[in-house]
Amino acid sequence: MNDNLHLYKARFESELTNFFSQTGPKYLYDPIKYFMLSGGKRLRPSIVLFLGDFLKNNPNDMMNAALGVEFLHCFSLVHDDIMDEDDLRHNQETIHKKWDNASAVLSGDGLGALGPIYISKIEKNTLEILRKYNRVILEICEGQAYDMQFENQNIDSDDYILMSSKKTGVLFQLCFEIPVINNGENSELLELFSLIGLNLGIIFQIQDDVLEVDNLESDIGKSIFSDIKRNKKTILTSLAFEHLGENWLDFQNNISQHNHSLKRTMLIQYLKDNKVDVLAREKVDFYKHKVFDNVKKLPKIFQEPINDTISLIIRRKK
Amino acid sequence: MNDNLHLYKARFESELTNFFSQTGPKYLYDPIKYFMLSGGKRLRPSIVLFLGDFLKNNPNDMMNAALGVEFLHCFSLVHDDIMDEDDLRHNQETIHKKWDNASAVLSGDGLGALGPIYISKIEKNTLEILRKYNRVILEICEGQAYDMQFENQNIDSDDYILMSSKKTGVLFQLCFEIPVINNGENSELLELFSLIGLNLGIIFQIQDDVLEVDNLESDIGKSIFSDIKRNKKTILTSLAFEHLGENWLDFQNNISQHNHSLKRTMLIQYLKDNKVDVLAREKVDFYKHKVFDNVKKLPKIFQEPINDTISLIIRRKK
Repeated sequence: MNDNLHLYKARFESELTNFFSQTGPKYLYDPIKYFMLSGGKRLRPSIVLFLGDFLKNNPNDMMNAALGVEFLHCFSLVHDDIMDEDDLRHNQETIHKKWDNASAVLSGDGLGALGPIYISKIEKNTLEILRKYNRVILEICEGQAYDMQFENQNIDSDDYILMSSKKTGVLFQLCFEIPVINNGENSELLELFSLIGLNLGIIFQIQDDVLEVDNLESDIGKSIFSDIKRNKKTILTSLAFEHLGENWLDFQNNISQHNHSLKRTMLIQYLKDNKVDVLAREKVDFYKHKVFDNVKKLPKIFQEPINDTISLIIRRKK
Repeated sequence: MNDNLHLYKARFESELTNFFSQTGPKYLYDPIKYFMLSGGKRLRPSIVLFLGDFLKNNPNDMMNAALGVEFLHCFSLVHDDIMDEDDLRHNQETIHKKWDNASAVLSGDGLGALGPIYISKIEKNTLEILRKYNRVILEICEGQAYDMQFENQNIDSDDYILMSSKKTGVLFQLCFEIPVINNGENSELLELFSLIGLNLGIIFQIQDDVLEVDNLESDIGKSIFSDIKRNKKTILTSLAFEHLGENWLDFQNNISQHNHSLKRTMLIQYLKDNKVDVLAREKVDFYKHKVFDNVKKLPKIFQEPINDTISLIIRRKK
């Protein structure tokens, strides 16, 4: 299965090269090409292609869907990097760092504009797919808005899940829904795939936070470091607020004068001492159960391959 | 007819108030509401509603189309204001000035996401409309890219028209196309409406530049002032480059050390002395002929009302 997902990634990236013949203003397309060539896991398009193959859908439709979800994902990354003032993405300079903010705003817009064009090229059950896709764009914006808003407030894990569902969950959900809708499969299967995708997305978003605590000895985790700088909320900080209340607020006050690196070390120690990492892992398990309970409700022939692919995505180590 | 367009504007703005009950993250929706309430001519949605009424289309479909084109227009304004570092829009602070860049990037994205959702709600011939709409989003991005790119180079009037077609022309074109497609009218009518809309949009974009020269005595024109600061290309500077060559380049060098206000005065005098304003007015006339030639090819009953509405849009004084 591992090999399979890599195969889909390779197939996707080979198709992506066609895009680079696109002509038009260099101001727009140079940063877009730079970003699209910078790599990434290509997980979302790989899921679409895998499920599309499995359901024996038209490969052209599925490739257009794969391009549509990846462009949408990249649009959100480019604009999130501006908002979070992150300088690195996929181990190279972000667009606003290499060029400037104006280039990053516009090339993000361009990526966001390319997505729906490819979704529009899907030939079967296009309108139903487009309507879902269009809702997802707005929900991703809402998720990013919560992410920014929550920098200035304490949130519990319900708020964290709301944010994660919108930031990450709905796009994974869409990747599971599109192949089923395109196939014209029955609504029961669509509902199961939809729930599997959404909860897998939530797991995907929260898992990084948990891995950070496990990897204290390793090199400084880029994400939690930048998270601390901007006071970003993670599953761990939201569970700490929810379960430890005043004690957590006091701890935050106590570390506020330290530098980011020391803050991070103290934070991870605090989370371990108070077993917040255990609570976080329980949260992951809760969503894993939701995923695999729904996998078990799928028709027999679906269960093993879907199960394998999901396990692979969940088991990733970085 | 004048009254009529105002009527459509009022109908549109009344519908827009429904939007303000939208719930969700304040970080996203507060700037969106602020911007949508700040006014504007609402010309694009008014065109859609007028043509929709005229063709006896379903009013709900036309209102959704009107919202779809206006949200797209507003998305591009919010992001253009970031890129051009403009502080004022509709006589109030721009979003990035009142809040910050991150808010403006995200609320622009939100406006861009709302557009397709309303277009998706159209019930008749939705897919054909959505496909055109999706192409237009990318073309608007390309137009803005040329606008940014041209800050650093001299361009002739062909380049200027290319930029204007994409920045403004294609969205006017879409406003003329959507009601016809929704109606299911024949392809000949669609082609005529399409050409009328595109050329009207080009006129609309270049007319401001020409008006600036006529209004030298009036208070400092915001747009050309900001244009000069950023070395933006107008129909006038592109015609000057095309027709005066070296002389124009020398003039640009000569004024480069002056402040923006003096530069503007000298520029306008130079353009008048060299009759570039006359050339620009000839350009407007060229596109007016294109528009009205196509109006004359319309079925008889269309000609007078379309003619009146277009004349009204072209005759605006600000």
